[in-house]
Amino acid sequence: MKNPKLVPIILTVIIVVLAAAIIGILIFMKNQPIEKRGVQPLVEIAAMEPDSSKWGLNFPNQYTTLLLTETNQTRTTFGGSEPVEKLDVDPRLRTLFAGYSFSKGYSEDRGHMNSLTDVRNTPRLSDATPGTCYSCKSSSNPSLWAEMGMATYDAMKFTELTARVTEPIGCANCHEANTMRLVVTNPALEEALAEQGLDWTKFTRQEMRTVVCANCHVEYYFQKDTNYLTFPWDNGTRIEGIMDYYAEVGHTDWTHADSGAPIIKMQHPDYELFSAGSTHFNAGVACADCHMPYTRDGAVKFSTHNVMSPLLRPSETCGACHTDVDYVVERVTEIQGQVWATMENCENALVDAIAAIKTAAEDPNADAALIDEARQLHRQSQARWDFIAAENSMGFHNPEEALRILAVATDFARQAQIKAIEAVK
Amino acid sequence: MKNPKLVPIILTVIIVVLAAAIIGILIFMKNQPIEKRGVQPLVEIAAMEPDSSKWGLNFPNQYTTLLLTETNQTRTTFGGSEPVEKLDVDPRLRTLFAGYSFSKGYSEDRGHMNSLTDVRNTPRLSDATPGTCYSCKSSSNPSLWAEMGMATYDAMKFTELTARVTEPIGCANCHEANTMRLVVTNPALEEALAEQGLDWTKFTRQEMRTVVCANCHVEYYFQKDTNYLTFPWDNGTRIEGIMDYYAEVGHTDWTHADSGAPIIKMQHPDYELFSAGSTHFNAGVACADCHMPYTRDGAVKFSTHNVMSPLLRPSETCGACHTDVDYVVERVTEIQGQVWATMENCENALVDAIAAIKTAAEDPNADAALIDEARQLHRQSQARWDFIAAENSMGFHNPEEALRILAVATDFARQAQIKAIEAVK
Repeated sequence: MKNPKLVPIILTVIIVVLAAAIIGILIFMKNQPIEKRGVQPLVEIAAMEPDSSKWGLNFPNQYTTLLLTETNQTRTTFGGSEPVEKLDVDPRLRTLFAGYSFSKGYSEDRGHMNSLTDVRNTPRLSDATPGTCYSCKSSSNPSLWAEMGMATYDAMKFTELTARVTEPIGCANCHEANTMRLVVTNPALEEALAEQGLDWTKFTRQEMRTVVCANCHVEYYFQKDTNYLTFPWDNGTRIEGIMDYYAEVGHTDWTHADSGAPIIKMQHPDYELFSAGSTHFNAGVACADCHMPYTRDGAVKFSTHNVMSPLLRPSETCGACHTDVDYVVERVTEIQGQVWATMENCENALVDAIAAIKTAAEDPNADAALIDEARQLHRQSQARWDFIAAENSMGFHNPEEALRILAVATDFARQAQIKAIEAVK
Repeated sequence: MKNPKLVPIILTVIIVVLAAAIIGILIFMKNQPIEKRGVQPLVEIAAMEPDSSKWGLNFPNQYTTLLLTETNQTRTTFGGSEPVEKLDVDPRLRTLFAGYSFSKGYSEDRGHMNSLTDVRNTPRLSDATPGTCYSCKSSSNPSLWAEMGMATYDAMKFTELTARVTEPIGCANCHEANTMRLVVTNPALEEALAEQGLDWTKFTRQEMRTVVCANCHVEYYFQKDTNYLTFPWDNGTRIEGIMDYYAEVGHTDWTHADSGAPIIKMQHPDYELFSAGSTHFNAGVACADCHMPYTRDGAVKFSTHNVMSPLLRPSETCGACHTDVDYVVERVTEIQGQVWATMENCENALVDAIAAIKTAAEDPNADAALIDEARQLHRQSQARWDFIAAENSMGFHNPEEALRILAVATDFARQAQIKAIEAVK
């Protein structure tokens, strides 16, 4: 060292610089947000809170996309969410539903946020309509079921429940408050799964992304006298098992006005058709993958709650797995066209069968046993046709199964016609 | 340099070493084989050489795997290459083919090497059998067609051609000698493609790996009087286009012995069903990808010519694209089961229709116009059923199209039955 007097000065400068650095780092750390795992709720949500807008304070992206379902009225080739009156588009439906409320009005369903408005305005309503009809229409339900039990809920009239059912479909129908865990909320679904030895609390999250849709998108019926909501799955969820079940419990929705056949109205068995060995279901695809795709908005990625047809945004839906989006959309269109054409033929066969049975039933000399056989065939045919017609994918949820079912339905309708013709020979 | 006298000695040693190295390299190069692009034929093959064993000297792997088709008699769930007598397995076929040669014998096809043995031993042969029946059975054909022209070939009787047709299906049916280029050899296929504005010489190699199979695996017929081999594709290759074509040219294979309907026997429209918008065809998969997969034998990789069901070696076939082989095999099985069940129903409907038309035709008071309508419906139904039944994939070549066609076929059969019943009212 050439100048030993500089040593303490240099050391002092170093100490000052280090001290300043430490202070700077501490200030920087102080101004960082507190690190926590996951999302920190801004507001606490009550268990089964019916009001989705409260949940929306914590989850604004999910909530505001849910709100879009009120106005996302788009027509697709075979469906969509415009309130099209199907009876006008296809007048044969008036014949198929003769004597039943669906011949009065059968509007295409609109998005989730319209559920309550639409169920209250359907021409199918009457003084006899049970409260059970609200079961799939409102996020008020989980708390009501918890409060009074489903049996009591279902024993009430529709009009009696109206004051308590205040919200359309919303967060509480599928989510547990605060944890946001996906949950089965419809007791009828829980019972139907248990009947098959399934415990949904053991399901994977990906399985739940399908099963929560089965809270509503299923075939169901109301038990006689009690109107207790029940899924007809004791013999499995295929159409054959469902029809066997209805035979065992002796259930019929109505007696057909023209044919006198005991008919089952299928609701919207989307879950049953999709899960019956479809290629997408077997490959592990969930309903939400296609109907609620992960969406980017600015820097945020979330599962959109603007539920709609995947065909309206194929890049986000099909494109998540398929690189050739134009091609797969073309394939879907072709397959749906094949199902549609096959369904058309089936409907024509049913209309012919109904006319033939009506003619036979009006003939006092007709063979009553043959007429009865014809009516049973009409029942079996129409249930199968409706299993595909009321389902919301024009067969695409499971193309081969849909076409198989329609082929059998057409055969049964023509056999019904034959029995009726033979009855008056 | 400490000793200048060593300089010339060192330089001399270096020159000697370099000279020796150059000589060594030249000797090494001299002993190397002459480098050529591609495979050097060991023997020259004559154009359209019928004898596959000669080609086999150059391509022993391809040839010896072709030989395996003689003995690869394995049953699959719905097909295979065992010579099962279908008429015994399903006696309804005797009713469906009543009055036609197929009611005498309808054996499951065996592998390619058995083609000549089997066509000569089928109980369907008669003195009237035309030479055209050899068209898909022999590698002798390309040279015979070149020599005499297809019209002359087709004008000969089966027995007249027998001495000239000496080889089973072989190399010359799909390959150009020496270049081994894939070629269309059947003039009927060339004409049918040209009719649709298609020039196969412009096809890609991958397209050719499907089109050469259409030399034989198609629906065809023999023109009246000339027996000229013709593919009914002028209106396209879908079943509707084919039936329109047959209506236009007024072709019928035989008059049904029971119903009196003018029936078309479908052959094996594998190419038509597969290429009609199937998902595998649209995705660019060729017949050879699944039926002649690339195979490893020691250090060599080649396309096996032991043509068989892909289900008999799914790792090599499905596994070339699908990572989950067990799953896809399960899917194929499920889909084939659905097609099979739908085909069974269709067959029952056809048997009922035939019985009803027979009854009506025997009634002198029956309405002749209605019987004629019933016969036309029988024709349309049976052609559609056979389009799937005679096809070799139990619908898997195009599942949705197969199920669509069977649904229509079932409807037509029942409608035929109804017309026949109404004819005798």
